[in-house]
Amino acid sequence: MESATQAERSKQQLMAAIAPEVEKIEQVMRHDLQETLAGADPLLVEILDYGIFNGGKRLRPLLVVLASRLCGFSSDSIYGLAIAFEYLHAATLFHDDVIDRADMRRGKPSVNKQFGEVAAILGGDFLHSRSMLLVGKYVGARGLTIFCNATNAMVDGEFLQLRNARNSNLSIDDYYSVVRGKTALLLAATCEIGALAAGATSRQQEVLQQYGLGLGTAFQIIDDLLDYQGDAGKTGKAVGNDFQEEKMTLPLILALQNAGDEERKRLLFLLEDEEARKNGFEEASALIAKNNGFSLSRSQAEELVADALAGLESFSDASSLPFVTILHALASYVLSREK
Amino acid sequence: MESATQAERSKQQLMAAIAPEVEKIEQVMRHDLQETLAGADPLLVEILDYGIFNGGKRLRPLLVVLASRLCGFSSDSIYGLAIAFEYLHAATLFHDDVIDRADMRRGKPSVNKQFGEVAAILGGDFLHSRSMLLVGKYVGARGLTIFCNATNAMVDGEFLQLRNARNSNLSIDDYYSVVRGKTALLLAATCEIGALAAGATSRQQEVLQQYGLGLGTAFQIIDDLLDYQGDAGKTGKAVGNDFQEEKMTLPLILALQNAGDEERKRLLFLLEDEEARKNGFEEASALIAKNNGFSLSRSQAEELVADALAGLESFSDASSLPFVTILHALASYVLSREK
Repeated sequence: MESATQAERSKQQLMAAIAPEVEKIEQVMRHDLQETLAGADPLLVEILDYGIFNGGKRLRPLLVVLASRLCGFSSDSIYGLAIAFEYLHAATLFHDDVIDRADMRRGKPSVNKQFGEVAAILGGDFLHSRSMLLVGKYVGARGLTIFCNATNAMVDGEFLQLRNARNSNLSIDDYYSVVRGKTALLLAATCEIGALAAGATSRQQEVLQQYGLGLGTAFQIIDDLLDYQGDAGKTGKAVGNDFQEEKMTLPLILALQNAGDEERKRLLFLLEDEEARKNGFEEASALIAKNNGFSLSRSQAEELVADALAGLESFSDASSLPFVTILHALASYVLSREK
Repeated sequence: MESATQAERSKQQLMAAIAPEVEKIEQVMRHDLQETLAGADPLLVEILDYGIFNGGKRLRPLLVVLASRLCGFSSDSIYGLAIAFEYLHAATLFHDDVIDRADMRRGKPSVNKQFGEVAAILGGDFLHSRSMLLVGKYVGARGLTIFCNATNAMVDGEFLQLRNARNSNLSIDDYYSVVRGKTALLLAATCEIGALAAGATSRQQEVLQQYGLGLGTAFQIIDDLLDYQGDAGKTGKAVGNDFQEEKMTLPLILALQNAGDEERKRLLFLLEDEEARKNGFEEASALIAKNNGFSLSRSQAEELVADALAGLESFSDASSLPFVTILHALASYVLSREK
């Protein structure tokens, strides 16, 4: 038997620590859907069951719970709010997979593939609506404003990404704008609303919002790295998707900035020429590595996480300790994850 | 010059009475979007402008305003709430046109045709989110619950319609279930939330909710009649769409119920046989007319409107009169509309 690496042991420790919360989140979601969908069309029930209970990590609701606990909130009512973020996340995935015409999601057919586009659009709308109702119910207009700013930023981020597609001059700032809108602001809202529900001070809300923002941005950078360097057996998707779609992600942007004229031209050719691209992934990866695209991307993710964690130092009393520890472990996991 | 018919004169009178409100609704929407979309992607701005300012009748926000005024609410803040219902309506149309792969909407290319499916899905999501934020802001959790019940019923109605497609045994109850979900419950919510914003009694909310339900159901029946009997020059869409899609609408259901064996079989053949259907619309229409499908549908719409209006008699004080009059005129317009 091989000995587990430190990262694996840390991950197992983290998973054990959060398992009861994840279990509770699953339960509350099942119960809420059962109640909400009483009398609904059986196909809608089937789609939501299929699309939601698929082994997701429940990172978003977990962050809501942890942020609220860190701010001293002990009520079970937090789970009712937390699941809103999983619903919204699922709604986004339903619609994204329609938009990207994606056939697979987490190793099984996507909702649009399994049930059709119409079902995916409508199922997403249903969850979107339910998520906003829950946010309004638990944290009122202030919570809704934070939530909608995040969802509207997601839409805006999608448009920005469409606009940026195949723009090989994309700047690092443009990349971060898209990541902020598409991923990070929702994680920030997740933490901020958890704190809001707990009646935290605005300083505490701000610190947690910044934690979410940093964590979310790092999460996306690692995602972009895995698309080049991941193990398909672990990630469940082939490497090179972003490259084949000419998506300008951070490793590529940084490599293009750092490369000399010749290598830059070669990398652009491999990216932009349809024939060259088909077999060019290995060579492009090597050029990105040589020009530090991967290592610099990872450094940026690490810096973002370090900044996010530094803010948590303001939670220094004994009762905060277990939750700060889990938020640290989550951040480490985001950096070391292989899928 | 031809003299206008009574229906036309009544319509002109109604339009003059509501014109200032409609104008105000347009203004508040423009202002709200300008503010909300500050800094957003230019394409998103363009899509929303294109999809929203297209000569719509603004029936939904108008009902919010009228219901609140009827319940004694005089503040201009009602417009901020009212526009949520136009946003939701637009979001629904964006997504519906993707689902139906419709190329035209109100005589010009649909959003999906003009800007693509992705833009239509995302633009709809943005408006959906904004609409819920406004409802939460102005009428809190209670308003959100009413609103979400309506939006979730719309999704459920769509699923029911999918399930019912090409089911020539569809019952009248099934038809009404779909209409309730797809159209009527939202108009009911519109009126109910207008009353709620005014701080009306629960009895007043109930009466207005019933008015919206009746008006909405009648609205859909007339829509289904126009699909057989409308003047394409006025409706902006060809007659016979529902028939070509084998959609089981009320005129058809009633005719099938009333027809003798032979005519019933012939009507089903015209509907279900692909070749026969192509040129069968005139003959099918004649069979529906002969079996009172159209006249009975119209009677049902008239009864629904009469019931809806009867409830309004409880608003009997002098200050209610102008608003009750407009709600009566709106109901008459719904029955007599030609587009």
